[in-house]
Amino acid sequence: MSVFTALDVKDVRFPTSRSLDGSDAMNPDPDYSAAYLTLRTDAPDEGTALVFTIGRGNDVQSAAISVLAPHLVGRDVEETLADLGGIYRELTHDSQLRWLGPEKGVMTMAIGAVVNALWDLRARREGRPLWLTLASLEPEELLDLVDLRYLEDALTREEALQILRRGAEGKEQRIAALRDKGVPAYTTTPGWLGYSDEKLTRLLHEAREDGFEMVKLKVGADAADDVRRMRIAREVMGEGYPIAIDANQRWGTSEAIHAVQQLGPYDPYWVEEPTNPDDVLAHAAIREGVTPVRVATGEQGSNRVLFKQLLQARGIDVLQADATRVAGVNENIAILLLAAKFDIPVCPHAGGVGLCEMVQHLAFLDAVAIAGDDERRRIEFVDHLHEHFEVPVRIERGAYMPPEEPGNGARMHEQSIADHLFPDGPVWAGEEPAPTLTAAS
Amino acid sequence: MSVFTALDVKDVRFPTSRSLDGSDAMNPDPDYSAAYLTLRTDAPDEGTALVFTIGRGNDVQSAAISVLAPHLVGRDVEETLADLGGIYRELTHDSQLRWLGPEKGVMTMAIGAVVNALWDLRARREGRPLWLTLASLEPEELLDLVDLRYLEDALTREEALQILRRGAEGKEQRIAALRDKGVPAYTTTPGWLGYSDEKLTRLLHEAREDGFEMVKLKVGADAADDVRRMRIAREVMGEGYPIAIDANQRWGTSEAIHAVQQLGPYDPYWVEEPTNPDDVLAHAAIREGVTPVRVATGEQGSNRVLFKQLLQARGIDVLQADATRVAGVNENIAILLLAAKFDIPVCPHAGGVGLCEMVQHLAFLDAVAIAGDDERRRIEFVDHLHEHFEVPVRIERGAYMPPEEPGNGARMHEQSIADHLFPDGPVWAGEEPAPTLTAAS
Repeated sequence: MSVFTALDVKDVRFPTSRSLDGSDAMNPDPDYSAAYLTLRTDAPDEGTALVFTIGRGNDVQSAAISVLAPHLVGRDVEETLADLGGIYRELTHDSQLRWLGPEKGVMTMAIGAVVNALWDLRARREGRPLWLTLASLEPEELLDLVDLRYLEDALTREEALQILRRGAEGKEQRIAALRDKGVPAYTTTPGWLGYSDEKLTRLLHEAREDGFEMVKLKVGADAADDVRRMRIAREVMGEGYPIAIDANQRWGTSEAIHAVQQLGPYDPYWVEEPTNPDDVLAHAAIREGVTPVRVATGEQGSNRVLFKQLLQARGIDVLQADATRVAGVNENIAILLLAAKFDIPVCPHAGGVGLCEMVQHLAFLDAVAIAGDDERRRIEFVDHLHEHFEVPVRIERGAYMPPEEPGNGARMHEQSIADHLFPDGPVWAGEEPAPTLTAAS
Repeated sequence: MSVFTALDVKDVRFPTSRSLDGSDAMNPDPDYSAAYLTLRTDAPDEGTALVFTIGRGNDVQSAAISVLAPHLVGRDVEETLADLGGIYRELTHDSQLRWLGPEKGVMTMAIGAVVNALWDLRARREGRPLWLTLASLEPEELLDLVDLRYLEDALTREEALQILRRGAEGKEQRIAALRDKGVPAYTTTPGWLGYSDEKLTRLLHEAREDGFEMVKLKVGADAADDVRRMRIAREVMGEGYPIAIDANQRWGTSEAIHAVQQLGPYDPYWVEEPTNPDDVLAHAAIREGVTPVRVATGEQGSNRVLFKQLLQARGIDVLQADATRVAGVNENIAILLLAAKFDIPVCPHAGGVGLCEMVQHLAFLDAVAIAGDDERRRIEFVDHLHEHFEVPVRIERGAYMPPEEPGNGARMHEQSIADHLFPDGPVWAGEEPAPTLTAAS
């Protein structure tokens, strides 16, 4: 028997705002950061997770994780790991903490970190990558991990179980196919705002040479720039090659419809985050207004209730799950089930720091045990900061290949953590990041 | 000229879970708490605000307020106070901090505290109560305080200005009427879960004797109890007396419709928080299912985008604005404008600690300068913890009477703060609050 002994949380920040990598219409100067949790036990092993933020406030996010210690410290590890549905519900239903959301923002992301670290530890004890730990569960076990409260008007328990039972059929063949071919990636590397047309062109050529079958461009800062960059991209990649655009919430409803229509001649594959992520009704109106361009969102969707509504209102064609925005693996399983119910593909959000490493496990689970085969499934990829992770993602021929190493992918090298501790690590000690107060407008 | 020197934040908690006051179906053991901000200047004056929480996590909320110091410290006070639309937009558009929401949860409530403390200081420098400071602004000045981004599909700039211009007509007469008669209150004091039928009956009689023209009962924990308590309340108060019910998000859609229909014979005036506050579509379905019972929500609505949708989808009959949930006075003015556009009354949420003192200013502003006269307007009242405030609310003949003292109402007595500091104040030093891990289910 072992018990949990501590939640060790570190404020780790990468000074990415010093370059223009990661710059978009709403986030001009992100410092990719991780509120990095190590869940310690009195055994030699530990669980790891992180919450991705973009700089300021990473300390608040870290404090929010730490405040969950009384739920874990002193508790039996084996019992807790055997009932991760139970601890997920306990954390999300802690009524005093729930008041701080409910089910959204800093406190929910903190709960997500603890849940994800518990899954990391469970997978490590099983000697499996997280995706396989999850995919090895029976339909009833997967269902027991989720909380259907507030979902029943869109997804009954019986429907969820049917989806999971259907997902279990042929699972072994799909696992073999996954190991063979992976899940297609798309790359955002060429498309950041602030890159010159020459750099855009060069990176687009590289993307195709690397085997990616889709790319994405950031838009929304300047309409004329968007048209020029989209025209270049279409010229470089040729007719029919999927090129998505991403406005990072820059627009209102009519603005979004107008902007996407302006880009229509260049055949965008999807428009991502056209407006505020909470605005279900606006997404439905935009989707109607920009058909046949698909609408995608989700990286800042707080919880299963929002995703349920986006699906009910026919507001999205593509659901972009995120590994660290919601209350962890369990909440994301509910979101995968909702997407499967509505036959909407899940194309996870990634990039940042560690998001690729973590979110791939959800896509692999979806591919082998929930939605199953779906040619529309793609995982975002940005070639950035992977060298800091013990098990960096492996991209081959434009596809994410599933790791076989144990865990959830979040664990960083000790040296990377030490170097980037904020504000006292060597990367920061010489230079306090300016409190840039930029608005996107 | 003066400058801001510090954000002094204190974690103040009242051990209300030791009694059953404040107990409802989702929040069985709240410790009413305040992340209490004093915004200091190098002049003798200061601004005050608080964020209301219900216990655990009040330290995280306090940390989130503190992290905003770089936006204020060293800044010119007069310039800042002269452009409170500017600082509100600067804080809500800080892209790195926005990532932590966006526009929701702990970080947004922190921004609300800073915005509200700035308004407190401005009102004090004018020697006016906040409601009168706001009501004294011209329509164009009020409009400049709000951020219409994401609202234009429901409220254009021109429409907002028309509402404010209409609101300015006859303002002086309405101010006089407000000072004469106040705004009607309703009381939740009798209706907490856990009170005996005898206590319920006694408190209902007292409510009517005190002049309240509406009461509210908590429901949702046990259906049979709800029917019995509602029957008692109807018998005591008589036919036609408005009795609202409040489920505190306990139900799913069909559950809510069924539960309210069960209580239909006792003629509930409104059903409050029937389900998850983010669930716009569920509110619309519930409203259709429970007509003629009204649907009310808002105390946990994060931002103007959610309220816009609740109004667009015809999901609510009553909008319950809260003083400390959203990004401060400015965000609440946008919400008041949206409600006026859709002709939905604003009946603010109060109770907790300090919420009555703060939120009344919004209702008074609405009454004199935005929606104007509206017999449906009522402010929630709970007779609890007012003695800790420098300017406690004044209820006369069942109505909130407007304060004339300067400020926003949030300032507490120094002794109350010292006594209730967590965890080292005398009220807590002897007794660590148990980390109760109760779920509502």
